[in-house]
Amino acid sequence: MTETLVIGDYSDTDKAVLSETFAPLFIASPRTLGTLDKGTRAAVTVVALKGHAPFGADEMDLLPALRLVANYGVGYDAIDIAAADAHGVKVTNTPDVLNDDVADIAVGMLLCQSREMMQASTWARTGEWAAKGEYPLNRKVSGRTAGILGLGRIGREIANRLASFKMDIHYFARSEKDTPGWTYHTDPVSLAHTVDFLVVALVGGKDTENFVSAQVIEALGSRGVLINISRGTTVDEAALLDALEAGRIAGAGLDVFLNEPNIDPRFYDLNNVVIQPHQGSGTVETRAAMGQIQRDNMGAFHRGKQLLTPVN
Amino acid sequence: MTETLVIGDYSDTDKAVLSETFAPLFIASPRTLGTLDKGTRAAVTVVALKGHAPFGADEMDLLPALRLVANYGVGYDAIDIAAADAHGVKVTNTPDVLNDDVADIAVGMLLCQSREMMQASTWARTGEWAAKGEYPLNRKVSGRTAGILGLGRIGREIANRLASFKMDIHYFARSEKDTPGWTYHTDPVSLAHTVDFLVVALVGGKDTENFVSAQVIEALGSRGVLINISRGTTVDEAALLDALEAGRIAGAGLDVFLNEPNIDPRFYDLNNVVIQPHQGSGTVETRAAMGQIQRDNMGAFHRGKQLLTPVN
Repeated sequence: MTETLVIGDYSDTDKAVLSETFAPLFIASPRTLGTLDKGTRAAVTVVALKGHAPFGADEMDLLPALRLVANYGVGYDAIDIAAADAHGVKVTNTPDVLNDDVADIAVGMLLCQSREMMQASTWARTGEWAAKGEYPLNRKVSGRTAGILGLGRIGREIANRLASFKMDIHYFARSEKDTPGWTYHTDPVSLAHTVDFLVVALVGGKDTENFVSAQVIEALGSRGVLINISRGTTVDEAALLDALEAGRIAGAGLDVFLNEPNIDPRFYDLNNVVIQPHQGSGTVETRAAMGQIQRDNMGAFHRGKQLLTPVN
Repeated sequence: MTETLVIGDYSDTDKAVLSETFAPLFIASPRTLGTLDKGTRAAVTVVALKGHAPFGADEMDLLPALRLVANYGVGYDAIDIAAADAHGVKVTNTPDVLNDDVADIAVGMLLCQSREMMQASTWARTGEWAAKGEYPLNRKVSGRTAGILGLGRIGREIANRLASFKMDIHYFARSEKDTPGWTYHTDPVSLAHTVDFLVVALVGGKDTENFVSAQVIEALGSRGVLINISRGTTVDEAALLDALEAGRIAGAGLDVFLNEPNIDPRFYDLNNVVIQPHQGSGTVETRAAMGQIQRDNMGAFHRGKQLLTPVN
């Protein structure tokens, strides 16, 4: 009877290494946990979790011997940490190794949105360039003002990159940070009101739900662009769609949405939005590093060693 | 009889200001100069030039009183400077104001190419994300090695931005420059061999024609990406197309081409190329600044003052 249950959609490489090291049982989603027989569930001490489906008290009740959930990803908002504490379950994540990739996608979306690079590409590729002349002018990126909502490790990577574009950096965080002259705001509305680009780099979860409220979006204004690489939940998506459709903000670059991958089809009609399929950390190199950290935590647990990256 | 001839495709704003200030004659291209009558041509002392059509001895012969060509753009490779010297014609350009925008497009193309942002956007927008799951993994950008071919003012802006992505910066230039620890190469093949991303920021013109030769492209190799924001002429485009089609280099991000806007249709079939319609400096803010410098040079000429940005 295996002690290890691997949940989610893994690459063939990850699957092979997991199989070899832990001889686990694989299932696609926590939602199908209940279909496993009681004896199988009772043997599970470690879950390797990937994906954004909820993993809470109900799932833990189905796995009475569970002691570790090793999450693949830095954000563990899908895992109920209070329930884990109550069940004596430790949770680990994969911090830091994905910061660069996520920051890169944030900057890429910002450039694409302002410089209309996807529309300009279509203009060139469909022959409109030859038929109609120059692509219409768009908006300068360098030298503008950027606001980072949540100056954690990823937020700081984004700010460092945007500073090289000669942007004036402003940020909101729970407390003022040690920065190279960036401007601290205690209120997200004040931040949104000040900046041209508002980049959301908050953690997910209940505490930040709809943190980018209708009021924040209004404060960003008709020249402002919202970039979100955090979680769909951090933004009031209905208010965002209304503002985008009405032109009350200039545009958005979004790697995360509510109900991924079945995102609101209203997004499809918006040319002022750069859409990415939650691929912030989606490089071969980074996903390999994330899988390694997940497995290292599982290995540490099995050998009775200290977990590398515990979150509770 | 007007002294000022405005050549090229200008924005309505630029046209209005030019009209008000200089009461000029407008024509679309130097190619139609010969259709103007001799008296009109004989009165012209100043040409405001925009576009990439050649302006050389033949054109200058048609304008015997010409004393100034005020070029709209930093690159003046379409103007024969030796012929201008021989005809007693001064040439001005619009340096510096466009450096940021061009560097921004270079970085945007690099991010789009490596992170496959355009394909990933299509994946999300056409519902493949919902139907087939995650977009395939792509390649990490941050922390790689970048080579700048031509460390002039634009090349330096690109290098500064890429350094914020924790890239190791290498460069080729005619002489070693004062840099923050970047590595100088005396040979473009050595540079291409060393780097993951080769960014072409050379000046255009005869001296740099096919500077990115078949040999340089081969040295870049099957994991390498070529970015060009300079001129189509700086790259051996036939060799580039061959290498891209055969996968002998990983991909390219190109804002400039031979025979713009009628670019080689072989580019349209290449998914590993990010194509932009020569929009490097194409922002409202920068184009306004370029128009202003062009007009300031023309004004200085008319008032007998020193030209602001002479190139000969």
